[in-house]
Amino acid sequence: MKDSNISRAIINRLPRYYRYLEELKAEGTERISSQELSKRMGVTASQIRQDLNHFGGFGQQGYGYKVDLLYREIGRILGLDEPKYMIQIGAGNLGQALTNYISQVNRGFVIESVFDKDPGRIGMKVQGIEVRDIAELESYIASHKVDIAVLTIPKDQAPEITDRLIGCGVSAIWNFSHTDLSVPADVAVENVYLNESLMGLSYRVTHKNETELE
Amino acid sequence: MKDSNISRAIINRLPRYYRYLEELKAEGTERISSQELSKRMGVTASQIRQDLNHFGGFGQQGYGYKVDLLYREIGRILGLDEPKYMIQIGAGNLGQALTNYISQVNRGFVIESVFDKDPGRIGMKVQGIEVRDIAELESYIASHKVDIAVLTIPKDQAPEITDRLIGCGVSAIWNFSHTDLSVPADVAVENVYLNESLMGLSYRVTHKNETELE
Repeated sequence: MKDSNISRAIINRLPRYYRYLEELKAEGTERISSQELSKRMGVTASQIRQDLNHFGGFGQQGYGYKVDLLYREIGRILGLDEPKYMIQIGAGNLGQALTNYISQVNRGFVIESVFDKDPGRIGMKVQGIEVRDIAELESYIASHKVDIAVLTIPKDQAPEITDRLIGCGVSAIWNFSHTDLSVPADVAVENVYLNESLMGLSYRVTHKNETELE
Repeated sequence: MKDSNISRAIINRLPRYYRYLEELKAEGTERISSQELSKRMGVTASQIRQDLNHFGGFGQQGYGYKVDLLYREIGRILGLDEPKYMIQIGAGNLGQALTNYISQVNRGFVIESVFDKDPGRIGMKVQGIEVRDIAELESYIASHKVDIAVLTIPKDQAPEITDRLIGCGVSAIWNFSHTDLSVPADVAVENVYLNESLMGLSYRVTHKNETELE
């Protein structure tokens, strides 16, 4: 990596580059200029050049980017070339759907185990994965590599489970529990607050004839 | 509404205020100063005062905010006091989970109908709602109020369905299809790109010993 001081904003844009490159690759495009990519993505060409320069450039002046190369490089930067072992806490409706979803994403993300505290769910299978008793969490993590924990539990249970995960050394949490987690600086959290996204849409539906959005 | 020129950034923060106020309400807190709320939410007190001033203030100098009043007012601003009629396109795994989820959110969001093009899904019931043939989309919308359409279809189907929805006058889309939708300026879109969220986490897991995030 050329530059070890990559801002969160750039990191947040990388998956979007990856997605557009994947689409271009699927269309059979072999090469694209930053201008063309910029037009397609709706960001400035200079932003694209700046962003990619953080990782060593990839483009040649007046020649553009090789789509397949850039796609693979961004995938590598995102860590998609190495499997990520995941556990999921919470085997309710949303949890089951996510286990399903992650199994389909198929980019090296592997749900290895699912936990729940509900005796009615313990022992059942989701995508062929047996749901374990949450009481086994610590012993499981002690003997398995866990890169990412997915939280799909009610928010009142989230703080306790978060503390237990961190106590076991888990350092990345994909949080669907509708609450802000309190974690040390070296623990990565990505929140997906479905509720808030829907409320934002509700606002815009409610006020569509009043406001001019920026 | 005091100020009709509300920025997207403020709108995006409103659901978070709403969530914290709900928690305070559940804890029995009747009144809170912008300082206390700021500490809890991890934003500045001046930001809170500025944001809420856009909607007419609600606070009294040196006295703080009445939690219940502010909660109800923000809910009203978000449009949560009026039902939002929704349809969902795509009754696959994620679609079914979302129908379930929205039914549980219970803030006036009502999934009225679910559509799919797969004959194997048409006619089945999700949360008691019969899955209709996507061919009936136009005739359904012509005779029902639809505030929000939820897209949980593969991304290659999303552009066509989006055009059909907009053609029928639907002006708000909650998009889970992993592609950027092309819509007129007066159509509201909220994207939930689960893939990209997970890739961002993958980056941080992969580079956790290299980078200092801002």
